[in-house]
Amino acid sequence: MPFSPLASQHCQPRKGADHALDRPAIDGHLATLPGWTLTEDGKGIVKDFNFKDFHHTLGFINAVGFMANRQDHHPDLEAGYGHCQLLWSTHDVGGLSLNDFICAARVEALLDR
Amino acid sequence: MPFSPLASQHCQPRKGADHALDRPAIDGHLATLPGWTLTEDGKGIVKDFNFKDFHHTLGFINAVGFMANRQDHHPDLEAGYGHCQLLWSTHDVGGLSLNDFICAARVEALLDR
Amino acid sequence: MPFSPLASQHCQPRKGADHALDRPAIDGHLATLPGWTLTEDGKGIVKDFNFKDFHHTLGFINAVGFMANRQDHHPDLEAGYGHCQLLWSTHDVGGLSLNDFICAARVEALLDR
Amino acid sequence: MPFSPLASQHCQPRKGADHALDRPAIDGHLATLPGWTLTEDGKGIVKDFNFKDFHHTLGFINAVGFMANRQDHHPDLEAGYGHCQLLWSTHDVGGLSLNDFICAARVEALLDR
Repeated sequence: MPFSPLASQHCQPRKGADHALDRPAIDGHLATLPGWTLTEDGKGIVKDFNFKDFHHTLGFINAVGFMANRQDHHPDLEAGYGHCQLLWSTHDVGGLSLNDFICAARVEALLDR
Repeated sequence: MPFSPLASQHCQPRKGADHALDRPAIDGHLATLPGWTLTEDGKGIVKDFNFKDFHHTLGFINAVGFMANRQDHHPDLEAGYGHCQLLWSTHDVGGLSLNDFICAARVEALLDR
Repeated sequence: MPFSPLASQHCQPRKGADHALDRPAIDGHLATLPGWTLTEDGKGIVKDFNFKDFHHTLGFINAVGFMANRQDHHPDLEAGYGHCQLLWSTHDVGGLSLNDFICAARVEALLDR
Repeated sequence: MPFSPLASQHCQPRKGADHALDRPAIDGHLATLPGWTLTEDGKGIVKDFNFKDFHHTLGFINAVGFMANRQDHHPDLEAGYGHCQLLWSTHDVGGLSLNDFICAARVEALLDR
């Protein structure tokens, strides 16, 4: 599989500032995740996904939702007829944890074809 | 049913400024839809819905999505673990049409219990 | 709305043989629900629904699922690419209760257009 | 990942008896897919999955559905409150093709945690 090896990792409970990733770690992970960018406040990562109609957009939301429930880590999302933006952030660390990158990589794996 | 009679109407193709509702019409419809408010630009109506977990939030998104596909009128949505905000607007009239209020009333009907 | 008035009723907890409907009551309700038929053992009602692709079939399953969760009464279903069969029965009465007909009517209401 | 390497393969159009797998090939693939069994007629593979409530069952159906749509290969399913049975078969070969085992392996991957 051409996507990030993070996709085969599992989210773990991560709480407290010790689990917040620093900027070099963040940049390193982002380099493996095409299209994902840091939010302005540096506390989240986002990506927009386009779909051909609302059926496909809903299908994507459900697939991401199933994964998120199993990893017990949940995104914020914005969606419309043919697009969905995902935002991953870890409230419990006050920024980004490895869980956010694992989930972003798992989203990419869902779309590998 | 205690909710708006709009809930039993069906969306129709509505295009052009002639189908844009004026402010008295908008206010009249909003009065029948508790919790729905006009967006700042006056071109949409929004409401936030709260749920106990992501399963329930996804279930709501799917129920709204099924209705939207059948009415061929689609909302913008923002969602997280336990909430979902819906926004209805009619791009083809440059503001609000009756379709937006029909769909808002249909959403309320989905939640009548 | 042209469909059964049962569609605006809500499921209630119904347990024990006292809540099992007799054949005249069953036939009376079935007469208001086109396409629904009694199972061979007389303990359930079924209907097949056809859809144009798997997206539409999944959308229907989700819409029915949302309603079922809210009514706290759940169907058995069989589905494939372009169809879904629903079966309603009430285990707690050992046959059919009013809940089954309420849910069948609510499914029809989901498809009223 | 401990599951079958088939999970990283993609379905391809497979039509005609040439693409039907013989019994040794079928048995070889089944050995990598715990819990999957051959149907009585030998033309499909099935597995039952249990879930704690209807929310989880619907989530699973949606996750499988998203994968199935992307692979353009679709299962038959039977589901109730807390379970879902999947059946994979390839009508176009009159039995089992590699596509069925790829999809079964992808289902297992969805549940790897």
